[in-house]
Amino acid sequence: MVAAITYEHIKTCKQSGARLGRVHTPHGIIETPTFMPVGTLATVKTMSPEELKQMDAQIILSNTYHLFLRPGHDIIREAGGLHKFMNWDRPILTDSGGFQVFSLSEMRKITEEGVHFRSHLNGDKLFLSPEVAMEIQNALGSDIMMAFDECPPYPAEYDYLKKSLERTSRWAERCLESHARPNDQGLFAIVQGGMYEDLRKQSARDLTSMDFPGYAIGGLSVGESKKLMYDVLDYTIPLLPSNKPRYLMGVGSPDALIEGSIRGVDMFDCVLPTRIARNGTTMTSEGRVVIRNAKYARDYGPLDPACDCYTCKNYSRAYLRHLIKADETFGLRLTTYHNLHFLLELMRKVRQSIMDDRLLDFRDEFFEQYGLYENLKGF
Amino acid sequence: MVAAITYEHIKTCKQSGARLGRVHTPHGIIETPTFMPVGTLATVKTMSPEELKQMDAQIILSNTYHLFLRPGHDIIREAGGLHKFMNWDRPILTDSGGFQVFSLSEMRKITEEGVHFRSHLNGDKLFLSPEVAMEIQNALGSDIMMAFDECPPYPAEYDYLKKSLERTSRWAERCLESHARPNDQGLFAIVQGGMYEDLRKQSARDLTSMDFPGYAIGGLSVGESKKLMYDVLDYTIPLLPSNKPRYLMGVGSPDALIEGSIRGVDMFDCVLPTRIARNGTTMTSEGRVVIRNAKYARDYGPLDPACDCYTCKNYSRAYLRHLIKADETFGLRLTTYHNLHFLLELMRKVRQSIMDDRLLDFRDEFFEQYGLYENLKGF
Repeated sequence: MVAAITYEHIKTCKQSGARLGRVHTPHGIIETPTFMPVGTLATVKTMSPEELKQMDAQIILSNTYHLFLRPGHDIIREAGGLHKFMNWDRPILTDSGGFQVFSLSEMRKITEEGVHFRSHLNGDKLFLSPEVAMEIQNALGSDIMMAFDECPPYPAEYDYLKKSLERTSRWAERCLESHARPNDQGLFAIVQGGMYEDLRKQSARDLTSMDFPGYAIGGLSVGESKKLMYDVLDYTIPLLPSNKPRYLMGVGSPDALIEGSIRGVDMFDCVLPTRIARNGTTMTSEGRVVIRNAKYARDYGPLDPACDCYTCKNYSRAYLRHLIKADETFGLRLTTYHNLHFLLELMRKVRQSIMDDRLLDFRDEFFEQYGLYENLKGF
Repeated sequence: MVAAITYEHIKTCKQSGARLGRVHTPHGIIETPTFMPVGTLATVKTMSPEELKQMDAQIILSNTYHLFLRPGHDIIREAGGLHKFMNWDRPILTDSGGFQVFSLSEMRKITEEGVHFRSHLNGDKLFLSPEVAMEIQNALGSDIMMAFDECPPYPAEYDYLKKSLERTSRWAERCLESHARPNDQGLFAIVQGGMYEDLRKQSARDLTSMDFPGYAIGGLSVGESKKLMYDVLDYTIPLLPSNKPRYLMGVGSPDALIEGSIRGVDMFDCVLPTRIARNGTTMTSEGRVVIRNAKYARDYGPLDPACDCYTCKNYSRAYLRHLIKADETFGLRLTTYHNLHFLLELMRKVRQSIMDDRLLDFRDEFFEQYGLYENLKGF
């Protein structure tokens, strides 16, 4: 058996301890640390595959729960898999549906077997379990699959979290057993345990004993402070094998990407850059720019003077504001393009800073210019 | 003085009488007969300028009324004109706002001076007149400007139409006089007169006596039958000078583009292809395809097997249906791209058929394969 996913370590930053690497997948190589744009419904909202390549997105994420609801994984399998269906020939990671079942669906009932719930779209009764999540992801044909986990609320009691992570470990084992295409798709496990160090240890020990090709840290960026999140990373990352990729789920604010990289995270994803873009909020070298504000009506300069992306090279703040105010789709394309480019460019700088053994210096320079963000999701 | 707009005649189709030509503008050459995609608010909805060039759109249309309301023509002037504002360096035609004032605005009051009306967006009191329409279009800097006309309702009484066209002629004269940039922008007049031959004659005689660089036929595609529209074209086109471009306003169904070309029309515009695309309706070599229909859910073939556009080369009907059903922007991009490409490709075939002296044969072949459309707007 050939491992579908392998991690190649290139070097460790002497200043920060961050690591530079490559994740090898059936659809190509991902340079890490990396940020993964989210393409929930088999499309990164407003973007074409060519545009994602132009900004050098090396991997995208798509959502099992959403694709299970529509168009249905059978249709995507018949179409030849998700890559072919959406015309994206680079790596894809699919989540397990666990998070969405717990955050989006209605009337859910958790049993040892799996989760019964109702579709948030039409109320249909549905069921997800480790086996079903594997069946769906095997049909999608993603390069990296995620094990089906229980996502506990935040805050949650110690006893609840302990029982939950133990179930997540049992589910992870069932995922491994029912995964039908291990030569084509790598399955990552998700470490849970909330904000308790001994629970994270227990979860990591359980899961690393099963030898997955990669490990994610789940249950963060759920409303806790950034300091608390960094504390959890500080004691959780060292529990993970150094020869496997590490993926911090649901994190995408610029400061958290840098701090996560410093702590040894290789992969991140978040809807933040694309979601705020569609509301006219952009990330620039000068900090946050809410482009719909009246003060940009006659601003004929680029969105970000320090940026060389398609949007900043060709359009003015005045034009972007006009489009966003008028609900024009092309405005959403331009702000989405810029925000994704901004984060991908940030990760390129993070990787270069690791190479140059100066990621802590880069962090300080970046924060000085850019400002910090009080909470994770708020950007 | 150098004429901003000139018409170069290449040849007349021996079979149909249609004419092949080139319109020379400050931003380049337009091969005619041509179809102009509509970019109402300084963007062809969902498309980028690069995509429009990829499908070889040679000129686009933008709307004076809409840009007057937002962002305002002063902002576009300060930005360096509409071409620079929207990053489009090929020709632009702007309408005069006349049609929108009569179709969109509220509480309008027509006087000899102009039209008082309320914005359909926020109820603001506004005023458009020949002089204001010229001021706005001079600020936009379009290659081709349109004279401010009164657009009568359909059906309308003979006496009303006669008074209306006489006012439109007086307004046309005021447009000529107040046009501040005749070296940079060519001003077209609009022949009115409803469905009455003698009124069309009167309007054409009035306007051709003033020597505009081009002439449009207005007041068609307003609810009349196609047969009636073709009748009006049959007696109106010969009234127009053969050394100037002729523009049939608001027409974009495939059959009307062919029939109009046969009758000597050089330019067309319509929101039809882009508007129906955003509702999931597409034009294909097999006729109309409503892609959101359930029968396409598992159709893994291209939208149009005979088409080589970006959409048809890379995506399946199943994927398009999925995106449109899920209200994903990328679906609107793909259907819009295809529909515009379809009409532009149709016009390339029309031009080739003129060159080959077989446009009537082409029409018959096209209708046989494609079907006819009962009404103009219904496609």
